[in-house]
Amino acid sequence: MQRKIKIFITGGTFDKEYNELSGELYFNNSHMYKLLELGRCRLDVDIETLMMVDSMEMSKIERDCIVQKCIEEPLKQIVITHGTDTMVDTAHMLTDAINDKTIILTGAMIPVKFGSSDGLFNMGSALSFVQALPSGVFIAMNGQVFNQENVQKNKKLGIFEETELVK
Amino acid sequence: MQRKIKIFITGGTFDKEYNELSGELYFNNSHMYKLLELGRCRLDVDIETLMMVDSMEMSKIERDCIVQKCIEEPLKQIVITHGTDTMVDTAHMLTDAINDKTIILTGAMIPVKFGSSDGLFNMGSALSFVQALPSGVFIAMNGQVFNQENVQKNKKLGIFEETELVK
Amino acid sequence: MQRKIKIFITGGTFDKEYNELSGELYFNNSHMYKLLELGRCRLDVDIETLMMVDSMEMSKIERDCIVQKCIEEPLKQIVITHGTDTMVDTAHMLTDAINDKTIILTGAMIPVKFGSSDGLFNMGSALSFVQALPSGVFIAMNGQVFNQENVQKNKKLGIFEETELVK
Amino acid sequence: MQRKIKIFITGGTFDKEYNELSGELYFNNSHMYKLLELGRCRLDVDIETLMMVDSMEMSKIERDCIVQKCIEEPLKQIVITHGTDTMVDTAHMLTDAINDKTIILTGAMIPVKFGSSDGLFNMGSALSFVQALPSGVFIAMNGQVFNQENVQKNKKLGIFEETELVK
Repeated sequence: MQRKIKIFITGGTFDKEYNELSGELYFNNSHMYKLLELGRCRLDVDIETLMMVDSMEMSKIERDCIVQKCIEEPLKQIVITHGTDTMVDTAHMLTDAINDKTIILTGAMIPVKFGSSDGLFNMGSALSFVQALPSGVFIAMNGQVFNQENVQKNKKLGIFEETELVK
Repeated sequence: MQRKIKIFITGGTFDKEYNELSGELYFNNSHMYKLLELGRCRLDVDIETLMMVDSMEMSKIERDCIVQKCIEEPLKQIVITHGTDTMVDTAHMLTDAINDKTIILTGAMIPVKFGSSDGLFNMGSALSFVQALPSGVFIAMNGQVFNQENVQKNKKLGIFEETELVK
Repeated sequence: MQRKIKIFITGGTFDKEYNELSGELYFNNSHMYKLLELGRCRLDVDIETLMMVDSMEMSKIERDCIVQKCIEEPLKQIVITHGTDTMVDTAHMLTDAINDKTIILTGAMIPVKFGSSDGLFNMGSALSFVQALPSGVFIAMNGQVFNQENVQKNKKLGIFEETELVK
Repeated sequence: MQRKIKIFITGGTFDKEYNELSGELYFNNSHMYKLLELGRCRLDVDIETLMMVDSMEMSKIERDCIVQKCIEEPLKQIVITHGTDTMVDTAHMLTDAINDKTIILTGAMIPVKFGSSDGLFNMGSALSFVQALPSGVFIAMNGQVFNQENVQKNKKLGIFEETELVK
């Protein structure tokens, strides 16, 4: 009865790991499979890695790619992991292009590979909101869900918050 | 804009820990605060420990207590952590007594205190469904959500599944 | 130049894990390989599982087996993982039977499989003492090393300590 | 009967952590206390943070400081946590200056703060070798111990190994 969910991986802090030879953070493969196994997730999901980039370095071409993949995707429920710094920008572009799917963007403040990550909590949240919310583009972080219209990342505090709606 | 959420703790595998002197599993304090901190949860929650029991040993008096606390609770969104073995029984009793609140029961197959627990994922899920679903009593486990009417625990596989609706 | 080290596994808290279907602690396979990988151990070791028992339930036959295996072992440096409750008893029996090898018994107060175990620290310690100490039977726990002659487990505190040598 | 051990902290990968606001690795406070607590270490230790630097950026002034502190230290058993890249250089300088103490340098390939670190294993090892070895300067990594005279870091493999003794 439950519908299949698409998960698009785009990189971000969520999937960074530590290179013990260079001492730098880098991308290797996604940790999504292990994470869902850890959560004993039994949802029917289809995982696809679109790119592995830091969202600060995400170009228009890459953002266009994400939008195009969401347009072409036949499944109606989509979760996207994304770097938090420009997550809102991608959410705006998705809203302009798509209105018949439920799309949830999520990420992590600490890499999933490190023990103390919020990634498992955020994925539990994103996969639940995508099943329960109507069509639209949303950001799920910190247990909260935001409509893409009025959300911003507070980079000083490292949290998402509603924008003042003074228009 | 987001509403405050009540979290009732009742014990179960979720909150068990290892007693290194006796070598047995036991209950100490709840790990909910640390878990929400790890998930960087920014929801406005009110946590209350009702009991700390293994759900196999939960008596009718204790189940009545949970129901009574949910009836008296002014908040309309309630998450209950509960042992998985009799979670469905408590869900049935809650449904008979309450119809104006969204109540989500969740738990864990591995104690939160042990590194490899599904508890963080399940809480991310439960706290999201409680915000998004209408009034009713639900079980959120494994990323899935079940209406209390047609769910059972498959004890051989350690998962929740829909019952055959042969009425 | 470094010599090969024998590791005998006998069970104990070190190797216990949580059975998520029954909710009980049990023995499955040893976690020694994963532990040494985590420690990036580059010692030349030969690991052999002799038994998987709680040391409270270790019979004379099983203790005789451990002694016999240590007698027959050609390698001169041996580490034994063992439940802490009767580790001292086995150490005494080993001393009576063997005097040309360095044997270190160690264990854990929390199962290695659980995130917060002391097992990795204790194995780092045991594998170092076995290389550096002369022939004899020793217990390595809590960073400390004890001669089997004058050590006892303080079961109230869950630690090993020197016995008063008032004979 | 056991003697007190001095632990000098100098930084290195061992103590790095992830800054969730900037997305970069940085130094905050040392994780030594938590690590020894996790290992249930019961040794009498005196911990002192000398600096918090990446060993690639360690200047001669800082290395002189480490040597001077070891000279002035009244305790005869000293463990130093140090970045692995120039650990051998500091070991050479210590050997030239001190000959009446047992000094063990150790570190980690993965930060202790991340779940999958070798730091706990290495500290178990270093604290054991410092008790068991005679005076001299040694490097303890990967369960192995090396005399400072003939050790080098193999930066391709991220391990320590004996140098060819072609003199």
